[in-house]
Amino acid sequence: MASTEPVNKKQKIETEETLLEEIDTCQNEIDALNEQASEEILKIEQKYNKLRKPFYEKRALIIEKVDKFWLTTFINHPRISSILQDQEEDCLHYMTKLHVEDFDDVKTGYRISFHFKENNPYFENDVLTKEFHLAAENQSDNFSQTSTATQIKWKEGKDLLKELQSKPQSNKKRDVDHKSFFEWFLDTHDPPNDDIAETLKDDIFPNPLQYFLVPDIGVYNDDDESGADSDIEEGSEQEIDDEEELEDGE
Amino acid sequence: MASTEPVNKKQKIETEETLLEEIDTCQNEIDALNEQASEEILKIEQKYNKLRKPFYEKRALIIEKVDKFWLTTFINHPRISSILQDQEEDCLHYMTKLHVEDFDDVKTGYRISFHFKENNPYFENDVLTKEFHLAAENQSDNFSQTSTATQIKWKEGKDLLKELQSKPQSNKKRDVDHKSFFEWFLDTHDPPNDDIAETLKDDIFPNPLQYFLVPDIGVYNDDDESGADSDIEEGSEQEIDDEEELEDGE
Repeated sequence: MASTEPVNKKQKIETEETLLEEIDTCQNEIDALNEQASEEILKIEQKYNKLRKPFYEKRALIIEKVDKFWLTTFINHPRISSILQDQEEDCLHYMTKLHVEDFDDVKTGYRISFHFKENNPYFENDVLTKEFHLAAENQSDNFSQTSTATQIKWKEGKDLLKELQSKPQSNKKRDVDHKSFFEWFLDTHDPPNDDIAETLKDDIFPNPLQYFLVPDIGVYNDDDESGADSDIEEGSEQEIDDEEELEDGE
Repeated sequence: MASTEPVNKKQKIETEETLLEEIDTCQNEIDALNEQASEEILKIEQKYNKLRKPFYEKRALIIEKVDKFWLTTFINHPRISSILQDQEEDCLHYMTKLHVEDFDDVKTGYRISFHFKENNPYFENDVLTKEFHLAAENQSDNFSQTSTATQIKWKEGKDLLKELQSKPQSNKKRDVDHKSFFEWFLDTHDPPNDDIAETLKDDIFPNPLQYFLVPDIGVYNDDDESGADSDIEEGSEQEIDDEEELEDGE
């Protein structure tokens, strides 16, 4: 038997090599099907992005007419409210529109736009846009993902970030996240782990009304001041309601 | 002006109510489109599951002929190897097939099957199956998600879990995860957070060859014993290679 062993060894290697090549061939067929499936799904997503667009546009026009719609929605959302500073809430009184859209090829990223009333007292920009350029499916490394944000042209003495830095003690809420809303907006260093952007894109923009119409859980009490929760922050839903009541009763 | 105020207030409320109803109408249209999109995507996934099936079956038949394919693949995968105990590795010598399939309606769950050689010395079962019954898209709460696993009929004196419990000190690797491979298999209490199942489904099953053919990163050193990493466990790639060399050189 000894003389046949070198041949056996060679045969064994050849057999395993052949088998692995056959597996690889199957794998290529599977990969090709996966790619076809991704492309078909992409086309459907593009089709429905187009179909949804007029409804989003119509919705945006109606929302603009609702007083403080986005501010209220953000305040009522547990994740977004965790980064909102008091003065930022005041600034968001002037926000009229939130828009999120995929880039045309869907896979490579998306854009979140915050529209503000002309001549808002805080900055010159009418629109602040944060873009996420994501990797293609086969580049799962994070290095290829980037994010950009509009430079905010603060008006004289209105730079909210400067103010935050100058009196950090007053910002109780910052401990939760070490970020304020505009700090988040301008922070572009870790796009794949931007959970605020994901919340805006996948939770708030698809259905903001559910947050605007916060469930009646007792904390937001429209009519009865006596039962008001003492934890409610300045500029929160409670204060907005109070303002409205004042306006109505003038 | 005072006399008109109650009317203004009422008008204001009516206006806001009307606007919110209009937003809700838009939202219903958007939701309906989302549902249609999900259904179309589902159909594509079902179509490609069918198209991929013969290639997965062909691949499975070839893989069965490759010695210790799944054991080697699992050992080379960083996450799976972190839960493999020495004796479990020995048991997985007898594993011939891994199969993952979505339930027919795709959305509601999937099934992972581990096939073993008939009459493996550890248990009576030829197939161990773990199933994940997941919630539909609109039921995102975790309560509705369940998991089931085949009861393992251990052969006399071969219950690996009993053995693990009887000598916990010998299992260095258990510290990493507090779980062994078969402990994971039988653990059905938290299906939405079963990252091992997700790894098998989304990473290993779609392309196991990449792990079987572990990149040559120095730790697995085929030819030079002197430089071998002392952390390499019994039954690992190193040992398999050594065995093969011994067989080849007989």
